[in-house]
Amino acid sequence: MKKITLGLVGFGTVGSGVVKFLQDRRSFIRDRFGIDFFLKSICDRSIDKKINKTIEKCSLTTQWEELVKDPMIDVIVELIGGVNPAKEIVVNALRKKKHVVTANKELIASLGQKLFEEAHQNGRNIYYESSVMAGVPIIRTLTEGIVGNRVKGLYGIINGTCNYILTEMTDKGYSFEHALADAKNYGYAESDPTLDINGMDATYKLAILVNLAMGKFISVKDIHTEGIAHIAHDDIEHAESLGLNIKLLAIAKQHGQEIEARVHPTLIPKDHPLAIIDGVDNAIFVETDPLGDIFLAGQGAGKMSAASGVISDLLNIAVNEGSDARSNLANLAHDTADLRMRMIDDIMTKFYIRIMAIDKPGVLSQITGILGQHEIGINSFTQKAHNRASTVPVIMLTEPAPEKKVRLALEQLHKLPVVKSKPVAIRMENP
Amino acid sequence: MKKITLGLVGFGTVGSGVVKFLQDRRSFIRDRFGIDFFLKSICDRSIDKKINKTIEKCSLTTQWEELVKDPMIDVIVELIGGVNPAKEIVVNALRKKKHVVTANKELIASLGQKLFEEAHQNGRNIYYESSVMAGVPIIRTLTEGIVGNRVKGLYGIINGTCNYILTEMTDKGYSFEHALADAKNYGYAESDPTLDINGMDATYKLAILVNLAMGKFISVKDIHTEGIAHIAHDDIEHAESLGLNIKLLAIAKQHGQEIEARVHPTLIPKDHPLAIIDGVDNAIFVETDPLGDIFLAGQGAGKMSAASGVISDLLNIAVNEGSDARSNLANLAHDTADLRMRMIDDIMTKFYIRIMAIDKPGVLSQITGILGQHEIGINSFTQKAHNRASTVPVIMLTEPAPEKKVRLALEQLHKLPVVKSKPVAIRMENP
Repeated sequence: MKKITLGLVGFGTVGSGVVKFLQDRRSFIRDRFGIDFFLKSICDRSIDKKINKTIEKCSLTTQWEELVKDPMIDVIVELIGGVNPAKEIVVNALRKKKHVVTANKELIASLGQKLFEEAHQNGRNIYYESSVMAGVPIIRTLTEGIVGNRVKGLYGIINGTCNYILTEMTDKGYSFEHALADAKNYGYAESDPTLDINGMDATYKLAILVNLAMGKFISVKDIHTEGIAHIAHDDIEHAESLGLNIKLLAIAKQHGQEIEARVHPTLIPKDHPLAIIDGVDNAIFVETDPLGDIFLAGQGAGKMSAASGVISDLLNIAVNEGSDARSNLANLAHDTADLRMRMIDDIMTKFYIRIMAIDKPGVLSQITGILGQHEIGINSFTQKAHNRASTVPVIMLTEPAPEKKVRLALEQLHKLPVVKSKPVAIRMENP
Repeated sequence: MKKITLGLVGFGTVGSGVVKFLQDRRSFIRDRFGIDFFLKSICDRSIDKKINKTIEKCSLTTQWEELVKDPMIDVIVELIGGVNPAKEIVVNALRKKKHVVTANKELIASLGQKLFEEAHQNGRNIYYESSVMAGVPIIRTLTEGIVGNRVKGLYGIINGTCNYILTEMTDKGYSFEHALADAKNYGYAESDPTLDINGMDATYKLAILVNLAMGKFISVKDIHTEGIAHIAHDDIEHAESLGLNIKLLAIAKQHGQEIEARVHPTLIPKDHPLAIIDGVDNAIFVETDPLGDIFLAGQGAGKMSAASGVISDLLNIAVNEGSDARSNLANLAHDTADLRMRMIDDIMTKFYIRIMAIDKPGVLSQITGILGQHEIGINSFTQKAHNRASTVPVIMLTEPAPEKKVRLALEQLHKLPVVKSKPVAIRMENP
């Protein structure tokens, strides 16, 4: 029996899930893998309030330094989130020759390159399966499963809160506000859901995915990010009648030496596998060469799912512990210097555009005229039925056009006297 | 740069795909992972006919012993298929302290336990990602990604030929024979497709999956296997009108200390993710605890997909080569002795049953009477419209019932004078 001693920093939702998993599955893991995980210490800043029963032989502290200094501890599990003091904990743990398991997307997205180098210098590894899609093994899939393939594109539903809200809006006709309130009620949104709703949570995750899939560390600042708060139910309905579903997608594509990466509400065909991912589920669709397309879906959030990813990391460490292996393909501090970012202005996409216009002769030619000036091709054009309303929705699907031209055209359209509100534009993809 | 020297046995479709992958992606693999694969020798029994151009510095032979004996070779890639002489090649390679990569499902399904022990004794590993779903990384997902979870059930579309044929029958209304001829034309079926059509290919793969997911080596003889040759287009149509799609599924479930495993045509709800997997694509749906359901799909067959799985195995070996790591969770020669197989007679499933009966009063009560005698509950009952035909189809969906009772009931029904042909029964699942 191989004994691996753990120190856990952060006893919140995921941390308590990890403890539960280790307790529930201890005999299974011993029998099947010959590995015994021993949780020696837990650090949490309000540890006294959180732990109301004794964990066998486990010491409790509010000082993470005690765990990092402890020579008996083989692996530090960091589950506090945020960059500080997580960075300090991880760096110090590595310097004390401990492996690190973390679910911290912000930390890996922001400082991955430095931390992987630190790990390398100390002959240790950082594992972070739970940082993206929780326990759904997207990180192992990219770094081990399809390793050697070229990733041409990836499209992910990687924020469960947004997917839950958009599903409610689509299926039940709710407004954004109503769906968000529901999500909070059912525990699918945090009390402050800002980072979910505004897309930043997905953006951190996308930065990690781009590094693993395309071999480039990118800054979250270079990822164009739009949240879902501005999505109107009307547009979901119009899109549905065109055979399209709306999802918050994290998208990355490689074009030769350029990479584009963005997070925004996206219309996709209803019959695409991503379109049927509902509620808090997560999924990712990866276009690779030569393997072809891979699709992976599951519960990408939640206490036990995240705990499952941490356990997977721990077992992968444990199998090699005691050897001199450097087995973590997810830790290569590589950066393909000759890849550069394509910024949002130059990214080509198709758009769904809705304009509320006064219904009188000549309006349509004014609208199409402006799009034509900017060389934006129109693929389809619908003027919705109306009952003598003063304004009617004009719905257009464009051909692929550069973001910058579309933005200029929308500004010009907004200024037309016949256009009665700010035009709505939602990008479309057909993975 | 770490140099890994390879010997390839078998230069067929997959073997030539591996050579192409190594050539096309050599500089990528060198740059990104610091690993240089050097293919030193290829063995194939008709090597002269197959290789019409020189592979740089690579020797060709018809004698596999030459590769196994060569002290320069680190890894033997076995791609000839079948148990003999593959078994001898693999065992001898391990004894000469070489790692082995194989795509040989029959070998691993039949002799996995012995081979893993042999590998363990020699401090080497056997990797076999391509043996199931080719390059779609189901083996890494089960052994590393969701490791530590309990797998309650798995449902796989793991034979591309059968899925192509059933898709053609469903979408185009073809007969089985017509769809099979099409599959051969397009290269989706081999000239002798027996092992695909009769379900055995999927059965070998399922035996491997059950070992990895549930920790038990099972014999393919204990997997109830039915092929797709008897599927009639009529039943596909009737099922569709009931909201069901037909797929050849490989199914395994764990009930306490019992495992059931079977391969057969299966009706599933049209809106299930497995139901939209069309053509030669493969997919697997895994029910786990506590992570929840995982769904993985992709091109589970074909030259470059299988080659991709081999390359993934090679890179996973290469990262640890030179260390004393025993990193392959897929090589644990464990067997949970207290698990036993539930044999087909005792397996409970719902059934779709079609009976061609004479349309006269009293017939339905005779049919339902027999089902009642065998305690088979009926969930729905449809007698299809007819135009004064002498016989009409009677379609029933049953409640879950043990196989044995259903078989006895069908035999009794067949003997009724009013029943004009052998009743059709297709199992249903709702994963």
